[in-house]
Amino acid sequence: MVVETQLARFDSIALDCGATLAPVEVAYETYGELNHDRSNAILIVHAFSGDAHAAGVSKETGKPGWWDDMIGPGKGFDTGKYFLICSNVLGGCRGTTGPASIDPAAGRPYAMSFPVITIGDMVRLQNRLVEHLGISRLLSVAGGSMGGMQALEWSVSYPEKVASVVVIGSTARHTAMQIAFNEVGRQAIMADPDWNGGDYHGGRGPARGLAVARMVGHITYMSDESMRQKFGRRLREKDVLGFDFSVDFEVESYLRYRGSQFVDRFDANSYLYITKAEDYFDLTGGFPSLAASLERSRARFLVISFTSDWLYPSYQSLEIVNALRSLVRDVAYCALPSEYGHDAFLVEVGEQSEIVRGFLASAVRAAARPAGAPGATSRAALQERRG
Amino acid sequence: MVVETQLARFDSIALDCGATLAPVEVAYETYGELNHDRSNAILIVHAFSGDAHAAGVSKETGKPGWWDDMIGPGKGFDTGKYFLICSNVLGGCRGTTGPASIDPAAGRPYAMSFPVITIGDMVRLQNRLVEHLGISRLLSVAGGSMGGMQALEWSVSYPEKVASVVVIGSTARHTAMQIAFNEVGRQAIMADPDWNGGDYHGGRGPARGLAVARMVGHITYMSDESMRQKFGRRLREKDVLGFDFSVDFEVESYLRYRGSQFVDRFDANSYLYITKAEDYFDLTGGFPSLAASLERSRARFLVISFTSDWLYPSYQSLEIVNALRSLVRDVAYCALPSEYGHDAFLVEVGEQSEIVRGFLASAVRAAARPAGAPGATSRAALQERRG
Repeated sequence: MVVETQLARFDSIALDCGATLAPVEVAYETYGELNHDRSNAILIVHAFSGDAHAAGVSKETGKPGWWDDMIGPGKGFDTGKYFLICSNVLGGCRGTTGPASIDPAAGRPYAMSFPVITIGDMVRLQNRLVEHLGISRLLSVAGGSMGGMQALEWSVSYPEKVASVVVIGSTARHTAMQIAFNEVGRQAIMADPDWNGGDYHGGRGPARGLAVARMVGHITYMSDESMRQKFGRRLREKDVLGFDFSVDFEVESYLRYRGSQFVDRFDANSYLYITKAEDYFDLTGGFPSLAASLERSRARFLVISFTSDWLYPSYQSLEIVNALRSLVRDVAYCALPSEYGHDAFLVEVGEQSEIVRGFLASAVRAAARPAGAPGATSRAALQERRG
Repeated sequence: MVVETQLARFDSIALDCGATLAPVEVAYETYGELNHDRSNAILIVHAFSGDAHAAGVSKETGKPGWWDDMIGPGKGFDTGKYFLICSNVLGGCRGTTGPASIDPAAGRPYAMSFPVITIGDMVRLQNRLVEHLGISRLLSVAGGSMGGMQALEWSVSYPEKVASVVVIGSTARHTAMQIAFNEVGRQAIMADPDWNGGDYHGGRGPARGLAVARMVGHITYMSDESMRQKFGRRLREKDVLGFDFSVDFEVESYLRYRGSQFVDRFDANSYLYITKAEDYFDLTGGFPSLAASLERSRARFLVISFTSDWLYPSYQSLEIVNALRSLVRDVAYCALPSEYGHDAFLVEVGEQSEIVRGFLASAVRAAARPAGAPGATSRAALQERRG
């Protein structure tokens, strides 16, 4: 399946910080066919460094999408049944307006004059795209990691537009440790003189700082166990230790490669803005509790975590699940065994596919039932149960 | 107790890499009194960023030692009973010869011409210091983290000189994840243009890179839980999010402070050399198994781990314990509950003190028994038991 990234353009969008961004472009791809009553649309929302190219083979690059194992004919997100949309997030650097985009008022890249954005802003723009595509209600919004945050945000920002939500390896709010790892990445970038206050366009850019940031990220995406299995203490090229500061261990070589590779495809300022949006994310914000916030949602939930994911540990998924259960909402929770750490949502597709397939089928069935029929938890019914 | 750091000087020392370093100076402190038969000496070995100032108040700086809660009259390492020695490691930057020391052949700092050193080299130099102090046998060698590696190395390099060993929050070999975190720190330093291939002496030095390296380190020394308790999502100065890239969260402020503070007291090249020594450390090296390597030791062992230490997880302590048990050696193992992560060995002194106190007392009793008496596992007795 060869796919082409498309572009939608909107005059302006209001942001949580109070600023307005104008104009705004969104890069997106679609897979499968929208059915006649437009009821089979699923929005896929990507993680920190993802993009609109979630599935199929890119016409531009020839590369498979970042969730190609999960999206396609007969796969977890079955393109034979569903119409899937994936867009690059606001603030990104893969086609959607972000800090590397030209500020029309200045005639040069926004750089650090780009407004600080939130997960809510990303979702607001996605809503515009969904409206643009003529879809009034999504069968599901699904994503892992930062994608899960967007899915959660969708459920409370546009409750009437989301029939179901899939939240994988994610959280309702960033913890101190998650903020800390992001902050290290930001500091690594900003410490690079070539970052130059964000004004590096036309220059070489903070390649070294960005590579270090990515290296830290990669460690947090794996697990102690997966790193042991993948690298252990294996040496790279030599049979013996080199007694110098070139590469000794395989894991060093891997990290350096991943770091330098990332520099070619990601904008350093986008790194700053998107990690900030993650850190700012707190679904509770303004509400006395997570349950009070989630009470706005009307969706059925599937929450998945992975046992070895120490960056987004299972207890964070359970917080979401418990809040929904306290509201007597329809929520399924799966803690999947895996040794892959946070990366599991990208690579552990076997069981994940089965679970997603079943969940989407039940979402279709529930959507076909008239409102108020068993299975749909109405506000009235809920209030009755809570006394 | 006001203490003064002293200096010992040796003509030369042979290193594992094949090079010879000449001359070598060692900064050390001592606490308590050596008894008349010189049988109460304990060597304290420090962690990555530690120094010779383990206890008391420094005459130079007025600051308490890094393990002052554990070392002193009536404390875990009781200076009323024992004579304690602590020296700065080879390759360090706190008085002992390291990459910032003047290379007498060149008349300027060694910088990256300093030879790559190992934990074995550190221990070899400590042995010279112990000999210099007129001590032929240590009652104990004790340390946490990289200190635990040195203690393990002592037990196999100088088995006849070590009656007991205390290994806290440590490992017999660095895993891929541990190497990976160290490599990120090294890359952060070397990515800083002010590192200048290590030749920054007289210049400003790679302050930004070193600060980033230290920030990563600090995250790994804490735990998700301790960071939640200490910082949570608390904001630093503002009541609301700043929507800019200054400090929002307490945890960001803490990491930046710790990073910049570290720059004032630590040499960037020492960071490279000492982390490399950690990564190279593999007690198994050259032996078919950890047990085969530890078979050389003659010491009684106390191994302590902390439940929330994810940088040096308990299973690494258990590997050591299990190897010793397979050899029918005298080993006590305590997995102490703590929320402080790897830092626990520095801050969880209550139970740790009690355990160390009891262990040292039993080491004294065992040392007083004639060789071959019950409690001392002789090679003959061991071979008998193993059939």
